[in-house]
Amino acid sequence: MTTATLSGKELAGIIGQRVQQEIRSLEHDGVRPVLAVVMATDDESTKWYVRSIERAAERAGIGCRIIDLGHDATEQVLASVLRDLSAEPSVNGIILQTPLPEGVRTDSLVGLIAPEKDIDGANPLSLGRLAVGQPAFAPATARSVVEILDHYAIPVAGRNVVIVGRSAVVGKPLSLLLLARDAAITVCHSRSGPLGKYTKEADVVVVAAGRTGLLTGSHVSPGTVVVDVGTNVLPDGSLVGDVDEASVSGVAAALTPVPGGVGSVTTALLLLHTVEAARLQSPALVLEAAG
Amino acid sequence: MTTATLSGKELAGIIGQRVQQEIRSLEHDGVRPVLAVVMATDDESTKWYVRSIERAAERAGIGCRIIDLGHDATEQVLASVLRDLSAEPSVNGIILQTPLPEGVRTDSLVGLIAPEKDIDGANPLSLGRLAVGQPAFAPATARSVVEILDHYAIPVAGRNVVIVGRSAVVGKPLSLLLLARDAAITVCHSRSGPLGKYTKEADVVVVAAGRTGLLTGSHVSPGTVVVDVGTNVLPDGSLVGDVDEASVSGVAAALTPVPGGVGSVTTALLLLHTVEAARLQSPALVLEAAG
Repeated sequence: MTTATLSGKELAGIIGQRVQQEIRSLEHDGVRPVLAVVMATDDESTKWYVRSIERAAERAGIGCRIIDLGHDATEQVLASVLRDLSAEPSVNGIILQTPLPEGVRTDSLVGLIAPEKDIDGANPLSLGRLAVGQPAFAPATARSVVEILDHYAIPVAGRNVVIVGRSAVVGKPLSLLLLARDAAITVCHSRSGPLGKYTKEADVVVVAAGRTGLLTGSHVSPGTVVVDVGTNVLPDGSLVGDVDEASVSGVAAALTPVPGGVGSVTTALLLLHTVEAARLQSPALVLEAAG
Repeated sequence: MTTATLSGKELAGIIGQRVQQEIRSLEHDGVRPVLAVVMATDDESTKWYVRSIERAAERAGIGCRIIDLGHDATEQVLASVLRDLSAEPSVNGIILQTPLPEGVRTDSLVGLIAPEKDIDGANPLSLGRLAVGQPAFAPATARSVVEILDHYAIPVAGRNVVIVGRSAVVGKPLSLLLLARDAAITVCHSRSGPLGKYTKEADVVVVAAGRTGLLTGSHVSPGTVVVDVGTNVLPDGSLVGDVDEASVSGVAAALTPVPGGVGSVTTALLLLHTVEAARLQSPALVLEAAG
């Protein structure tokens, strides 16, 4: 059996076009969306990632403010910057980039991101709103999985989606997004026993555990669609997912590649969320809606 | 095979003793816990339920303020009352009792309950905090399920718990509580296809769908523990759960009864949450902790 490759690149292009449309429409109303990224680390791969967001934003016509507070930034300074950005009308979206300096409580900082600017769903309130069906931004990675399944017309309603990994960034918000689409969801993880017990019964498996080679061909059944959310950097600098591609290929019906799968869509969605946030915050558009 | 009955009454008694201990310790610091219940309905069964909370609170030595705003209360009035109670230092716990008058947006009202007083986990922020592992009160019904499993020493770590129902009051918060205890969780519901596909594979099944007779003996495997969260009032006024007791008895290893199961523990937990909230809010105790 041939395993189809579910590339994220085409979808990222389509989302990019939606971003362009939104930007033109916002321009018409005199609004230019602005994304702020707050960081406090010297980690090179993080700096590289933030620069890639900056370049993508600028290419799209979204203003991008990188606020680099340095590796010794205090929680107090980070909090004050997040409060200012949350209150600043010209800023539409805010990302608090991890890792943060040791001893800084990320938990309490993300609660300072105004929910309407929380375009990567980091504030617990965003997660809670998703859970009760109120408008909120999901973490871009979680939404990315759903958008890929939609793009390739893979149904989830009435089907069993197994999520490997219970993080607040992927596993939990993704389970909420999929429940809202009428899937049955199973969340398993490193402490829930043999993986195959769950993944072999799945229609769709989403792996988001951060462990190279975790899901192998023996864990999946023919016909299963596998989405690989893992992004693990090998010692040689190359990027691999959580799926053992060699053994899963030939068993699964379809598989997202790493790189070029979920990650490609995630950056596009961060920009889409930023323009969506700008639209929701635009006074002109709010008046239009009210009138 | 004999199906064991997992009564909630003994556990409710034990929780009641913990409440008593806490109250004595709070008295020592000059604090008397107070629970406020806001209601706006003429529905007789709701009024009966609120009176039962009031009686239980008073028996325990917890002050209980019933604020009945009448069936025609506006959202504005409800909002203003919730804001006042959230700001009022003498009130430790707040319940917004449903149903509310037609047209009132429950969603936006629950967001006004201060998280530290949100003893029934109604504010989406409480749910989000649970999801990220921050301190928060879970909805009492969801916690009740976990406490019953604990009380009867039924392990969940590394095991498969299947939750039938995806509500923000039971299914979703319960899945968060169980993930935190290292269970693998599956959430299925009315639109996720044949129930037995999931429930027959489960170590523990929790049914919280609100449909009489939904789970039958043909849906469970020998050895499965079944927790019935359903509370359905029959035309003759009697209370039944979501489980068809006649057919599940004799197949399942154990079953919680309705009434006398989850519901008995829920009221005890509402009181426990109120005294826990009072302890967290007590200035004397905060000073003690800081000193």
